[in-house]
Amino acid sequence: MSELFTVLPPGEAFAVLGRACSPIERSETVALEAAFGRVLAADVVARETLPAFARAMMDGYAVRAADTHGASEQSPAYLRVAGDVPTGVVPECAVGAREAVRIHTGAMLPPGADAVVMVEDTNLHPSTSPGQAEVEVLAAAACGENVLTVGEDVRSGAVAVPAGRRLRAADVGGLAALGITRVGVVARPRIAILSTGDEVVPASAVPGPAQVRDVNAGTVAAVVSQAGGVPVPRGIAPDDAAALERALREALADADAVVLSAGSSVSVRDLTADVVARLGAPGVLVHGLAIKPGKPTVLAVCDGTPVVGLPGNPASALVVAWRIVAPLVRLLGGERIEGDGFDARETSAVLDVPVQSRPGREDFVACALARDGEGVLHATPVFGSSSLIFTLVRADALIAVPLDRSGLAAGERVRVILP
Amino acid sequence: MSELFTVLPPGEAFAVLGRACSPIERSETVALEAAFGRVLAADVVARETLPAFARAMMDGYAVRAADTHGASEQSPAYLRVAGDVPTGVVPECAVGAREAVRIHTGAMLPPGADAVVMVEDTNLHPSTSPGQAEVEVLAAAACGENVLTVGEDVRSGAVAVPAGRRLRAADVGGLAALGITRVGVVARPRIAILSTGDEVVPASAVPGPAQVRDVNAGTVAAVVSQAGGVPVPRGIAPDDAAALERALREALADADAVVLSAGSSVSVRDLTADVVARLGAPGVLVHGLAIKPGKPTVLAVCDGTPVVGLPGNPASALVVAWRIVAPLVRLLGGERIEGDGFDARETSAVLDVPVQSRPGREDFVACALARDGEGVLHATPVFGSSSLIFTLVRADALIAVPLDRSGLAAGERVRVILP
Repeated sequence: MSELFTVLPPGEAFAVLGRACSPIERSETVALEAAFGRVLAADVVARETLPAFARAMMDGYAVRAADTHGASEQSPAYLRVAGDVPTGVVPECAVGAREAVRIHTGAMLPPGADAVVMVEDTNLHPSTSPGQAEVEVLAAAACGENVLTVGEDVRSGAVAVPAGRRLRAADVGGLAALGITRVGVVARPRIAILSTGDEVVPASAVPGPAQVRDVNAGTVAAVVSQAGGVPVPRGIAPDDAAALERALREALADADAVVLSAGSSVSVRDLTADVVARLGAPGVLVHGLAIKPGKPTVLAVCDGTPVVGLPGNPASALVVAWRIVAPLVRLLGGERIEGDGFDARETSAVLDVPVQSRPGREDFVACALARDGEGVLHATPVFGSSSLIFTLVRADALIAVPLDRSGLAAGERVRVILP
Repeated sequence: MSELFTVLPPGEAFAVLGRACSPIERSETVALEAAFGRVLAADVVARETLPAFARAMMDGYAVRAADTHGASEQSPAYLRVAGDVPTGVVPECAVGAREAVRIHTGAMLPPGADAVVMVEDTNLHPSTSPGQAEVEVLAAAACGENVLTVGEDVRSGAVAVPAGRRLRAADVGGLAALGITRVGVVARPRIAILSTGDEVVPASAVPGPAQVRDVNAGTVAAVVSQAGGVPVPRGIAPDDAAALERALREALADADAVVLSAGSSVSVRDLTADVVARLGAPGVLVHGLAIKPGKPTVLAVCDGTPVVGLPGNPASALVVAWRIVAPLVRLLGGERIEGDGFDARETSAVLDVPVQSRPGREDFVACALARDGEGVLHATPVFGSSSLIFTLVRADALIAVPLDRSGLAAGERVRVILP
């Protein structure tokens, strides 16, 4: 196995992995208050038309537009004020010819009216005798002006929010507007997380001499949660083929995907690939990513369940978790995945010093961000071994060097990932 | 009150609000597994030095660098293989002069060694008699090469992760590396959410004629959750000064901030500002934002508690929630806020058609995003009244028009907010 590397660029590797596995089929119903950030399991179809009634979009006067034809400051139209429509109630008055009804934003348009003149374009002339107030209209209104018409927001029968949408704040609002207070969402994918390494002990343990605490279990769990998955901790397996196979089979039995961080040495990485290859068909799909840090990554699908073997080095594992595990969790979670799946928070910054890379490889370089006196954001690389975790703790972001570049020049505006 | 508008640009308005209120002082202790995304209440100081022992960063041979001086493919150095160091155990052998010890990535460097030669730069000559194997070293190693030295990651006594940091995946990993499995975090700020409007009924209700369901309670709650707050639903108050004041006082008594979405009409907005002004000192700080949509916003601090009065229109309320409420929640939640606080996920895209704006105002224009054949992202405005919520449901993103621009030109690369 060890010699049969199939190194692919990360985007291509994710596409290969994605084609070989499917979104999970479990769904659940949640209250709308808990639906934000969940993935819609099926199209939600509007069962109402909104607005259900024509509404004023401005404070002013409901009128027949024809009655304001030609009105201007020089030549106002004069209309009798026939009443007042508060919000929330059905108008008791109608608008007849050469009449106007005082109306408030959001109120139902009274019968007869087809436009609203903004209060700013009117002068009210109160009258001493009741019902004889008159309004001077200083601007012509077009038919439909300042009116929300029936169905302008959404129509009954239309898809209000599509399946596969990770619900955003606006989507929650749209569902509320339709009175949909329970929502069918895709279950959160369960992602088993297994660390390996004879030298690795749990974060809660006191390491013996020559031992280190497990960093990757924590970082991978955070990435999994952020992508909408449920991290299922599976502990630490030793660098032993039989024990690793047993641990992986147990993890596979109870999860929608397994993410293991392999030991760091070449022999252990080969052992990982060999064991993963035995777990089910089609087995290992990608052995090696054209990414730095993170090259020694194994992507596999075993009897339908994806298995990601991350490098053991903490920074490498985390970069590959962002680049591959996060979109995988979103894909398993039913989300429509755009492009190559990479969907981190990002910004751009001016690079302060040159960064070397190699065409055909995506590089992620830890950096500090700072604004200069003019508010321009600058990125300065923070160097450190991918064996260290505090390089990333101290970094503000990662400079992304695209696949096709041999490096980035000082002064260049570069893409910066904010993990 | 109604005439005393103090319209400010959003960034300036947030600064005014931020200066008048303080982060909450409650903190709690959570397990490390639950700490991702929480804000650290106090500096975490490392109580250990990491790595605690010098470790190999590569598979290869631990050597004395001096013994490889001048080694090359043409003129290799020959060293006696004195043993093997697996990972996780204390080496049983030392490296003497002209000796090498086989070592694996992550293993403890044996006494006497000061460098590791990569296995790729060696040839092993096994011997028939035990202990007589010899390794041919094809490249000179510098002192410290391929070795992680003690303290290279973090030193005991140093601030490992600073107070006010919203914990990222890497931070969780750094804490795990140090064995810190319980973390003091700032409590999540409780944000009371109150809707107002005589025409507004809860999302769960069937609206009568002329009534509409409450959209803003749901959208604001989503924004509050995303910013790390706990939404505290306070229902719907009618457009009546006494009832509104009572509802606001009740909300203030049990929350770290109150967000109300005012009715949409001018008279109701004025009523809101008047009532808020009575709730405590200093009262209303900002009345009107230079933002579109969202101008009729009220920002106040009443006896130390911030009160945000959002516009009633769903799209306006949501834009101001993103622009002002989200950073306010993060500030109350103890996070260090950079710049003007706006911290949304964003990208850039090529604008397909011109967008009009006005200097001195930030505009947010709903848009669709699509990639062309060459993978370039294009933004096309999706027009729709700010009274509609489905304009934003159908949109992929918002085009941000900066404060100082009178519009954006077709073909221009523009900033796009991905809410």
